[in-house]
Amino acid sequence: MVLEKILKENDIKKIPESEWPILAGEIRSFLIEKISAAGGHLGSNLGCVELTMALHLALNLPKDRIIWDVGHQSYTHKLLTGRREGFDTLRKYGGMAGFPKRKESECDSFNTGHSSTSISAGLGLVKARELRNDDYTVVSVIGDGSLTGGMAYEALNNASKLETNFIIVLNDNNMSISENVGGVSKYLNQIRTADSYLDLKESVLNKLMSFPGGENIVKRIRKAKSTVKSMVVPGMFFEDMGITYLGPVDGHDVKGVLEVINDAKRCKGPVLVHVLTKKGKGYLPAERHPSRFHGTEPFDIATGLSKSTKSKSNYTDVFSTVMVKMGERNPKVVAITAAMADGTGLKRFRNAYPNRFFDVGIAEEHAVTFGAGLAAGGMIPVVAIYSSFLQRAYDQILHDVCIQNLHVVFAIDRAGVVGSDGETHQGIFDVSFLSSIPNMTIMAPKNKWELSDMLKFAINDFKGPIAIRYPRGEAYDGLEEHREPVKYGKAEMIYEEKDIAILAFGSMVKTAEAVREKIKESGLSCTLVNARFAKPLDEEMCAYLTKNHKLIVTLEENVASGGFGERTREFYDREGSDVSLLTVYIPDEYVEHGNVDILKKEIGIDADTIYNKIVTKAKELNL
Amino acid sequence: MVLEKILKENDIKKIPESEWPILAGEIRSFLIEKISAAGGHLGSNLGCVELTMALHLALNLPKDRIIWDVGHQSYTHKLLTGRREGFDTLRKYGGMAGFPKRKESECDSFNTGHSSTSISAGLGLVKARELRNDDYTVVSVIGDGSLTGGMAYEALNNASKLETNFIIVLNDNNMSISENVGGVSKYLNQIRTADSYLDLKESVLNKLMSFPGGENIVKRIRKAKSTVKSMVVPGMFFEDMGITYLGPVDGHDVKGVLEVINDAKRCKGPVLVHVLTKKGKGYLPAERHPSRFHGTEPFDIATGLSKSTKSKSNYTDVFSTVMVKMGERNPKVVAITAAMADGTGLKRFRNAYPNRFFDVGIAEEHAVTFGAGLAAGGMIPVVAIYSSFLQRAYDQILHDVCIQNLHVVFAIDRAGVVGSDGETHQGIFDVSFLSSIPNMTIMAPKNKWELSDMLKFAINDFKGPIAIRYPRGEAYDGLEEHREPVKYGKAEMIYEEKDIAILAFGSMVKTAEAVREKIKESGLSCTLVNARFAKPLDEEMCAYLTKNHKLIVTLEENVASGGFGERTREFYDREGSDVSLLTVYIPDEYVEHGNVDILKKEIGIDADTIYNKIVTKAKELNL
Repeated sequence: MVLEKILKENDIKKIPESEWPILAGEIRSFLIEKISAAGGHLGSNLGCVELTMALHLALNLPKDRIIWDVGHQSYTHKLLTGRREGFDTLRKYGGMAGFPKRKESECDSFNTGHSSTSISAGLGLVKARELRNDDYTVVSVIGDGSLTGGMAYEALNNASKLETNFIIVLNDNNMSISENVGGVSKYLNQIRTADSYLDLKESVLNKLMSFPGGENIVKRIRKAKSTVKSMVVPGMFFEDMGITYLGPVDGHDVKGVLEVINDAKRCKGPVLVHVLTKKGKGYLPAERHPSRFHGTEPFDIATGLSKSTKSKSNYTDVFSTVMVKMGERNPKVVAITAAMADGTGLKRFRNAYPNRFFDVGIAEEHAVTFGAGLAAGGMIPVVAIYSSFLQRAYDQILHDVCIQNLHVVFAIDRAGVVGSDGETHQGIFDVSFLSSIPNMTIMAPKNKWELSDMLKFAINDFKGPIAIRYPRGEAYDGLEEHREPVKYGKAEMIYEEKDIAILAFGSMVKTAEAVREKIKESGLSCTLVNARFAKPLDEEMCAYLTKNHKLIVTLEENVASGGFGERTREFYDREGSDVSLLTVYIPDEYVEHGNVDILKKEIGIDADTIYNKIVTKAKELNL
Repeated sequence: MVLEKILKENDIKKIPESEWPILAGEIRSFLIEKISAAGGHLGSNLGCVELTMALHLALNLPKDRIIWDVGHQSYTHKLLTGRREGFDTLRKYGGMAGFPKRKESECDSFNTGHSSTSISAGLGLVKARELRNDDYTVVSVIGDGSLTGGMAYEALNNASKLETNFIIVLNDNNMSISENVGGVSKYLNQIRTADSYLDLKESVLNKLMSFPGGENIVKRIRKAKSTVKSMVVPGMFFEDMGITYLGPVDGHDVKGVLEVINDAKRCKGPVLVHVLTKKGKGYLPAERHPSRFHGTEPFDIATGLSKSTKSKSNYTDVFSTVMVKMGERNPKVVAITAAMADGTGLKRFRNAYPNRFFDVGIAEEHAVTFGAGLAAGGMIPVVAIYSSFLQRAYDQILHDVCIQNLHVVFAIDRAGVVGSDGETHQGIFDVSFLSSIPNMTIMAPKNKWELSDMLKFAINDFKGPIAIRYPRGEAYDGLEEHREPVKYGKAEMIYEEKDIAILAFGSMVKTAEAVREKIKESGLSCTLVNARFAKPLDEEMCAYLTKNHKLIVTLEENVASGGFGERTREFYDREGSDVSLLTVYIPDEYVEHGNVDILKKEIGIDADTIYNKIVTKAKELNL
């Protein structure tokens, strides 16, 4: 096996050119085998095998720096830098991360996870290199999907001023996670089919030369550099900004890519290398269903079918179903996603109401302010964005939606610990950043029926900015019999007893049930309240609980600062209550990748840990 | 006076064309008179007088919608929609806002304040119009400076798909607040001087036609539409995205702009009208010093000189001076601003160390991740961004700086109540959103010397992400004798007494002094601690205070959620302390425009209100 000869970075340089295709094949087989067994990002990794090989052939790692935009496509890079063993623990707790991590390898020069950051970070490294008189090469590898994010454009705009080398590799597979959207995508497609213009230019100039006086005209054309460039160079869009454009080049031809990267290294300034790749390349099911194989659960290699026998629906499914219903009942309802039609479950809404569905690309900022505009125009937009990606739009929520108190519904999927994607994707800050914003209402459902009820409440019975956060994965289907109508700012009493009361927010109601069971078993009494709203707090309920309880416990799947527990504490302090409060939350640190249950135990929000905390506190209070 | 005939929207349509220049002149005189007396945004408003007139002539308000990007250039719009009287209370408490406000006029269709939002909001209105079968015209007016913000590009990318009319007016004055930067600016400059290409095209085609067989070539050229377009149309950048480009047109010719707007109204799709204007037009001092007259204090019309006799330095000046020193002493120090070299005081650093200074344009997201890249490359970046604009980069701070624990210094100017710019510009959320982020350290100085000490500490004695927030305006120069060295996470005891202790953060130390004076006068004893750090909290100091104090008061110029007070409360609650805590903070609502002292009284963070709260509480506690 050729792959076995690669034990560390730069070993690939010892592989003769004749064996490059074999190596590419082996890498693909390796990735398919490993990802089919454990899950992970497949399509994007299969798509950039040759591109990664070419970069490793052209560069000298770790001295040179590659920044992988988003970073889920860095598997081949990990494989070529001595991390083959890591694939047995990929995305597992304590194992190899699914994204580049500086602490994992010297060859990972910048951590990524969210989209469109690589050019900014790369430009920073380039400027540091200039100022320190270092002499390494910096390459930012960005997908065409990530180019729909405005930040990438801010960076391109700034890169244009550079006078030293900076290589931006545009890995163009004509896809983000779903199909790409918008003008840039259209433009890149034009480039893909730009041969006719090249032909035109040659034939026009040749003909001109043969006419009397034609030479002069050709000279004039050559002089008007920009004009001619747009005939010759398909990358006028980038050239317009002052960035040299090279390409397009076939991204599955190692030698071709290597040559153009070597050319790019010689440019004195910013250079964009346009590489055409195919997502899922070499594995037919992934080529055919790129969206499904973007991030995948374990699957059967022969058929491509998922191995997991999903029986219960998850929150995304519930959201998906209810949105279709809401769309039917109310023509004002529109749905917005940022390149996540599949992931958010809005695909069905799109199919049912294509005119009222908007995939804006990886552009969370635009998504939110676009929603504000729709609301100002009389529609009811539901903006569905994962918790960690919504961080991008903090200012737009604060500045464009909430100041004007516009009726925009935020459906925040992947809120809480998400697991194997790790620290960049954990949705553990949304309650905090949303709580700081005036006029904002924040809800979280205890189970799948409540997600449905809350969505209906948010759309039909409310005016103003309102968010519903719900976790990744299987929807809780317990407590079905508890289905009090959702009322603004009101919690729901689930079990009323005395002494100890648990006030649980959203996903923690399920955990609270388990905790309560254990408390009951130990002979103590325990009330359980489903908080429903983190903002506003149900102060009436909080006050009521002080009558028969000595210990109030808040549970939330969010960090402490600005969270549900702090709000509760503020209330009891303001009231001068002498009730004891125990707040359970995610500690003030980033949560790494791994199995959700292990992570929850690690950070102390699992039933056992919470039970122990409560019992300790109860003993102190002589309950 | 022609201007007097305009009492409400659409009245301008009664003014004959011959009087348009007179009206424009009167508007300019009016604006210069009012702004010179009370302060406000001058340059941008003088620059778009004719453009605004043309829009009002072409549109039917309030049915049609204009969205003013940023919005500080909406003075003429306000004048033409019946708000002339408002200029006597412009930006004053309870008076007319300096930005568009829906609640102020039906003719203000969308609130703005931060940059680059107008195309997203406009697109939302367009889509709402389509879905509701309404038939108004939507115009987003965006400056070339705002085009450096990535969000505008996200919106353009999405606008390109439209099949109904949407007019984007690019108000191009080749400036944001300072000179513009980057590739787009360069590109727009090329357009400004694009006449030669137009000439070329005509002459080339004419000559070709005269040659044997030339007709065929011309035909082929016409066929290769995109190629020819780039010869004919200077706005290829936009056309590439699928947006019709019209222009450039002289923005000071009402009739010319009106004609092109009317043309634009007939387009079935997105259309960009490129209008060339001059910032400060018609008032020589403003034309010559556009940056100084962007937002101005009251000034003398004849000389253009400021009327305010500034004697004391403000925090920006202190930051400016210290940065130059730090740059001299440490070659690793680099400075980043987002189009605010003047406002942040980095102009002097730029002049001293041009290679280590980066103005990235209005691009806060890029600014922060670019800083992260510089830090990863071994430099020490100081990112100076106003508090309310830093909201844009919440995700980048969290995701690109803090996960990797990079040494990036955030200099957060305009933190706290800023006054006349109003709700969009109040810097009252930064402690909250930064507190939620792991690895982040947050400081605020009590006076001007401490800003200097903290900056030195952050650069020289610290590794990791660290923020210093300081308010707009005059720097406090009291407490000069209290200058203990800054130590990580340590507060500073100013006056140690007993019973009541005030823990004041940053700007509130000055207020706390006044409060303490009053408390002393009333015969009570009062300790004053300068908190210095909001995160981490000085828990040792907090614990120490419980020995001799029964009432602890926290003061901060930030909202409650996630703020300094909540962190303090969490500590005392965790410790099971029975000390009474009074937290003073900005209430959970947006703070409008007006004089800072009035606003502080209004929201209850002035010395009198705080004193009364403390005395009331002290009485309850029998102190």
